[in-house]
Amino acid sequence: MPLRLSWIETANSPETPFPLNNLPYGRVSFANGSPRCAVPIGDLALDVSALERAGLLVLDGGPALQTGGWNELMARGPACWAALRARLAELLAEDAPEREQLTPFLRPLAEATPLLPFEVTEYTDFYAGRHHATNVGTMFRGADNALPPNWLHIPIGYNGRASTVVVSGTDIRRPCGQLKPKDAEIPHWGASQRLDFELEMGAIIGGATQMGERLTADEADALIFGYVLLNDWSARDIQAWEYQPLGPFQAKAFGTSISPWIVPKAALEPFRTDTPPRDHALLPYLQTNSPTLYDIQLQVDLQPDGAERATTVSRTNYREMYYSSAQQLAHHSSSGCAMRVGDLLGSGTISGPNRESRGSMLEISWGGRDPITLATGETRSFLEDGDLVVLRGEAVGDGFRVGFGECAGRVRPAQM
Amino acid sequence: MPLRLSWIETANSPETPFPLNNLPYGRVSFANGSPRCAVPIGDLALDVSALERAGLLVLDGGPALQTGGWNELMARGPACWAALRARLAELLAEDAPEREQLTPFLRPLAEATPLLPFEVTEYTDFYAGRHHATNVGTMFRGADNALPPNWLHIPIGYNGRASTVVVSGTDIRRPCGQLKPKDAEIPHWGASQRLDFELEMGAIIGGATQMGERLTADEADALIFGYVLLNDWSARDIQAWEYQPLGPFQAKAFGTSISPWIVPKAALEPFRTDTPPRDHALLPYLQTNSPTLYDIQLQVDLQPDGAERATTVSRTNYREMYYSSAQQLAHHSSSGCAMRVGDLLGSGTISGPNRESRGSMLEISWGGRDPITLATGETRSFLEDGDLVVLRGEAVGDGFRVGFGECAGRVRPAQM
Repeated sequence: MPLRLSWIETANSPETPFPLNNLPYGRVSFANGSPRCAVPIGDLALDVSALERAGLLVLDGGPALQTGGWNELMARGPACWAALRARLAELLAEDAPEREQLTPFLRPLAEATPLLPFEVTEYTDFYAGRHHATNVGTMFRGADNALPPNWLHIPIGYNGRASTVVVSGTDIRRPCGQLKPKDAEIPHWGASQRLDFELEMGAIIGGATQMGERLTADEADALIFGYVLLNDWSARDIQAWEYQPLGPFQAKAFGTSISPWIVPKAALEPFRTDTPPRDHALLPYLQTNSPTLYDIQLQVDLQPDGAERATTVSRTNYREMYYSSAQQLAHHSSSGCAMRVGDLLGSGTISGPNRESRGSMLEISWGGRDPITLATGETRSFLEDGDLVVLRGEAVGDGFRVGFGECAGRVRPAQM
Repeated sequence: MPLRLSWIETANSPETPFPLNNLPYGRVSFANGSPRCAVPIGDLALDVSALERAGLLVLDGGPALQTGGWNELMARGPACWAALRARLAELLAEDAPEREQLTPFLRPLAEATPLLPFEVTEYTDFYAGRHHATNVGTMFRGADNALPPNWLHIPIGYNGRASTVVVSGTDIRRPCGQLKPKDAEIPHWGASQRLDFELEMGAIIGGATQMGERLTADEADALIFGYVLLNDWSARDIQAWEYQPLGPFQAKAFGTSISPWIVPKAALEPFRTDTPPRDHALLPYLQTNSPTLYDIQLQVDLQPDGAERATTVSRTNYREMYYSSAQQLAHHSSSGCAMRVGDLLGSGTISGPNRESRGSMLEISWGGRDPITLATGETRSFLEDGDLVVLRGEAVGDGFRVGFGECAGRVRPAQM
């Protein structure tokens, strides 16, 4: 699929993250204005809440974009998602007759303050990247026992905390908690010394299942509305002491950042790709009839407070995952667990096969043993106060890009 | 505190779970009627939604009982909780002049179908009973390593799934999932063969904290609105295969039952009791200035399908817990995790020191090694299809009881 042309010039650049091929869904505020649903196109933002009020966007079932988020639209189902996307593409295509009518609803994207694009109902995080699981397992259990015995059979997941999912640009306060150095007899209270990011994708569930209902992996894929970048901030020292036997809790509860624009599944169709070869055949409920991963290039930039430039500390690709979000969702519903509109599934940390493609500081610095040197000359094992972490992602097509925007967060000092 | 007398005769019996001292909060429907907020008193249910509409119940800030649940009232804060409770006590007290006016709003409790009393925002479950943790740890790791090293320092918790919290009376479908017998090389798909209940209390959070904010244990206690009985249904075989390294997921996602009436903290004040003696002093953030556990007698009845009577398989008390809900909530917020109105915290399984006081079949049958014999002559290691499990709880005062009602659920066969 080539670049689709728009009458908005900046949307036709091969460099823009927001061509007509993308049309992602966000929620923003302009100066002193109320929150509204918006769609970035080139360097502009289309105020679709206002467009709907003006009657230029009519959805079956009545207005769906007036409630300050995308949950209502998601709940309308895939036919409505497709109708909205088709109408937006029509209005913004190069030959659109509505050009003049649309102009009042377009504002500079740079003037839009991104807000959380949807209400996060529940948040689940997975552990589904093989390189990441192997790296972490090797550090903690040795290379021979790196992958837990269930890992090649189950997309391992755990429930996270929805209340602290925040939009890109929100500062992250370094958490305090119980810390127990290996040589200490008892834990003490203190600020985390091993604060980390985790590079992930987030899948947003656009439909619901009843309690007791199970999804096939193909049905699960159909229920996904779109994707965002996700930073699963983690306090490794809090985690090390708390996580046995029931998993991470406060180590990952203080903040999870997502990028502001939900990239619809439809925009990613040209980039679908298969999951990697399997060591063991998966059980039938995890098998899909078509590819469910995506070729999305990812990178992580780290910029200390006051530094003139950032250092790219990781470059990898979403296709490195062993399990796709569709497979994770099928597993999530396998016991009969009800899923709801607005549920968010974190992919798990996305690491590639080499040091340059590792998706967390834990892996990059190998547990602190091998600090990296930044462009400023400073070294890092884990994150320092003031560090700005920016995740970036894009699917690169033939003369166009489908971009996710930034997922950024700055580390603020702990409050003791 | 003695029994407080009401003009409703049945509320003055020393046997009723719902005297004037209790006044718990529920949500019910009557035949063909819409859901409404209701308060049981003796053998009647007071329709407080209608009472508010009729102007007999006026709350600061306007109507709070019209939205079909108690979240709105909770969000008004402790002064409003106290005002409502005082007004209800006044209207129902033996000398109340409003007796005639109230009569149209009272219906037989037996005609009320209980609904989920509040919207569960997020659900967290803990592992905070020492006897339970010791029993389970002894089975899996031996008596010498029964308690994990962090257990005496941290109220261990994990995030659960809010979407499948259901009210008493809802059937529970036996879940399917990945099962791997010890002697099998790879897992297979099948129905759980080790289905279990867990006897717990649930604490309902009535206030909110901001991301980055921490609660002291005393502040946490003040944020708790009330308590319910809670059955954390568990599939032990699914759990055994999935739970390393990130904790239980689908093994506990298929259903969590709660009793229909939120017993307000105010009704439990006379029953406050201290947590047990500590092996190690807790870190300051977990210390409370007053008792935060409660003397609540608990029992579990098990009745096979078609059996004439139930067998009581466990009798224990909430005061057996090592950590209180207030301490759990303080820990939950310790990293800066935001808490929200309607969050539900499961206490963890409440077992006492002997076989008769164990709060799960896993413990009662010691992992299936010692099945128990029911009154019908049948034996049980884990739950069978058709089994009805009923949790009961009451705080027993001087001539009165504060009852929780039943938390009941029947096991339905798996759908393969």
